[in-house]
Amino acid sequence: MALIIQKYGGTSVGTIEKIENVAEKVIATKRAGNDVVVVVSAMSGETNRLIGLAKDITSTPDPREYDVLVATGEQVTIALLSIALIKRGYAARSYTGSQVRIRTDNAYTKARIMDIDEQRVRQDLREGRIVVVAGFQGMDEDDNITTLGRGGSDTTAVALAAALKADECQIYTDVDGVYTTDPRVVPHARRLDKITFEEMLELASLGSKVLQIRSVEFAGKYGVRLRVLHSFQDGPGTLITYDEEVENMEEAVISGIAFNRDEAELTIAGVPDHPGVAYKILGPIGESNIEVDMIIQNIGADGCTDLTFTVNRNDFAKARKILEKTAQELGAREVTGDDTIVKISLVGVGMRSHAGIASTMFGALAKENINIRMISTSEIKISVVVGEKYLELAVRALHDAFKLDQKPAA
Amino acid sequence: MALIIQKYGGTSVGTIEKIENVAEKVIATKRAGNDVVVVVSAMSGETNRLIGLAKDITSTPDPREYDVLVATGEQVTIALLSIALIKRGYAARSYTGSQVRIRTDNAYTKARIMDIDEQRVRQDLREGRIVVVAGFQGMDEDDNITTLGRGGSDTTAVALAAALKADECQIYTDVDGVYTTDPRVVPHARRLDKITFEEMLELASLGSKVLQIRSVEFAGKYGVRLRVLHSFQDGPGTLITYDEEVENMEEAVISGIAFNRDEAELTIAGVPDHPGVAYKILGPIGESNIEVDMIIQNIGADGCTDLTFTVNRNDFAKARKILEKTAQELGAREVTGDDTIVKISLVGVGMRSHAGIASTMFGALAKENINIRMISTSEIKISVVVGEKYLELAVRALHDAFKLDQKPAA
Repeated sequence: MALIIQKYGGTSVGTIEKIENVAEKVIATKRAGNDVVVVVSAMSGETNRLIGLAKDITSTPDPREYDVLVATGEQVTIALLSIALIKRGYAARSYTGSQVRIRTDNAYTKARIMDIDEQRVRQDLREGRIVVVAGFQGMDEDDNITTLGRGGSDTTAVALAAALKADECQIYTDVDGVYTTDPRVVPHARRLDKITFEEMLELASLGSKVLQIRSVEFAGKYGVRLRVLHSFQDGPGTLITYDEEVENMEEAVISGIAFNRDEAELTIAGVPDHPGVAYKILGPIGESNIEVDMIIQNIGADGCTDLTFTVNRNDFAKARKILEKTAQELGAREVTGDDTIVKISLVGVGMRSHAGIASTMFGALAKENINIRMISTSEIKISVVVGEKYLELAVRALHDAFKLDQKPAA
Repeated sequence: MALIIQKYGGTSVGTIEKIENVAEKVIATKRAGNDVVVVVSAMSGETNRLIGLAKDITSTPDPREYDVLVATGEQVTIALLSIALIKRGYAARSYTGSQVRIRTDNAYTKARIMDIDEQRVRQDLREGRIVVVAGFQGMDEDDNITTLGRGGSDTTAVALAAALKADECQIYTDVDGVYTTDPRVVPHARRLDKITFEEMLELASLGSKVLQIRSVEFAGKYGVRLRVLHSFQDGPGTLITYDEEVENMEEAVISGIAFNRDEAELTIAGVPDHPGVAYKILGPIGESNIEVDMIIQNIGADGCTDLTFTVNRNDFAKARKILEKTAQELGAREVTGDDTIVKISLVGVGMRSHAGIASTMFGALAKENINIRMISTSEIKISVVVGEKYLELAVRALHDAFKLDQKPAA
């Protein structure tokens, strides 16, 4: 008998009809001989309704009370799902984050899980019950209600899977798995059967927003086998697991292509070079809570430095203002910027053992006359910055060049 | 410094505007130098909305999960009220029933409070906070969420007042106090400044539905001074307190007149009398969960018994059917019934020390040619059954006869 954790998000439980549908899926898993723990989010729209009530009072509601408020969203869902399960003749029992003792720190609205006392859940499973747990919430040391922030239900599911040493943690969502790239850009993008935690982290953080990043980190850290599945369609989904398990199965070099449209590029040119100049330029940016992603520094023959970096497009104007002030102070020649750029990344653990990935990548882009403006590499990723207008062309060219539409030979 | 418990019901917190209004009232009490604990209900309509969701799944939702569901209603209100208080610069903290450890039995949907651990609230009060507690809910021994049933927020407020030994428990509602009778029937009905617990119990159970009966019993038992006040109008309201305190203040003989339109009368006539015949007649009624109120038995010269009793009008048809079956078995002559009757009750602790109340009452009714069909008396109450069409006439006649529109001399 396996122990399966299933997590259903807001759209999967958005109506009574959908909750009844989830009950059927849970029961099918139970009837297949598994123990089941279900984690659910608030019904879609409910969290926003609750936040709306608070915002009608003040734009800055007290964080402790904000958490007390929004935590009711999941509490409604656990009760309704349990009612639907019991109606179908299955013993079920719901728990809020507090009841199942999901201990968090006290960073209201974005708390982190510290510990789960899984005894109560184990007892219920022993007694044959389906256990339904409210996602997204917990309580701090002093029994104050906390929430994990948006998407935190994934983290709840993974944390429960880790605490209970579950055989699999299934995340039900509105896509049927993780794809080689966004099917809206590449229609013949292929669903991956398996992917490693590391790859998933790169793909998630770069825009394939299937899973909350923190939950993938958590799963990787505690070795929880994650599976992404469609809430309303049958199918194997995508298993997110250890390196070895994936590499033994598939000879994939590249798993997928991620891209991010929310990019902007800033350049400060002709800065008299001396030690610490990069810090002087980037320090004020960081202090303004602007995250810098890629950075390139060129030292010219004239002893001057050009420094180019990317920021989120929302921070472009603010960062440019700061940079212009810095330029004046440092006696730089000029500041230029471009907020019509995108970042495209090839991701694959196979890069570790395969040479020539970068040259294939650059060749494919050159063939389409796409100018590469920045490059950065890591162990399992190569990212390039190109003009926004080339995004679709570039992603399709790379998808074809690495034959991602075809399943790699076993 | 006094400790005041304030309770605001669903209509008092039915909108954000009303919640802000409640925040102002709470702060006014705090600024007057009092410690304040506020108990709130769900926003009006919210509990019904939640029940509607459950009923969309099944007409018989699991009681444990039903309580998990509806308990979210008050949790939303405590958060919103605390947000409104904190916005105004006052330290406030909300607690669910579970958090403040309101221990109940495990009779889901109608649990009874067993114990309150008031340490946490005391600590907050010492630190200058306004404490906001969810009414209507608690948790059982195993930390399951329970609810006290409709109107349970009054009970929460009184139980907290008892546990904290509060100076006063103020119940804010949509009337400005307890009246000598229903002002819709007697326009010059008078608001009572004070009334005893016993009188209030008689008035409440007879139809002046200002306070939940259980909360009044509880207040009487633990000696909690209760005050009924209007949520949106200023005024002293009505204090519900001990006999002595009231009797010393007011020489009232009669405090008020209650009436109940939901009455029906059944008579089984010509029953051959022998020991236990009343039991044989009323036993089957009680077993069908029909509550019998007044009972009169006459033994005729022919050795036959006539037995008349009243039931709730909703149970009239069902009770009549049962009674007809019993009549056949016992060889009774006939069964008659009337569901156009009402019960009118004079209530007053002064009856204990004043003679002649009954004769004044009967005289006033006779003067208006109102036929009395049944009479029952208790220590502080005289009830009569009359035809429904006489209700208003009778209540007005009694109100005048006992000069209830005039404040009694001190």
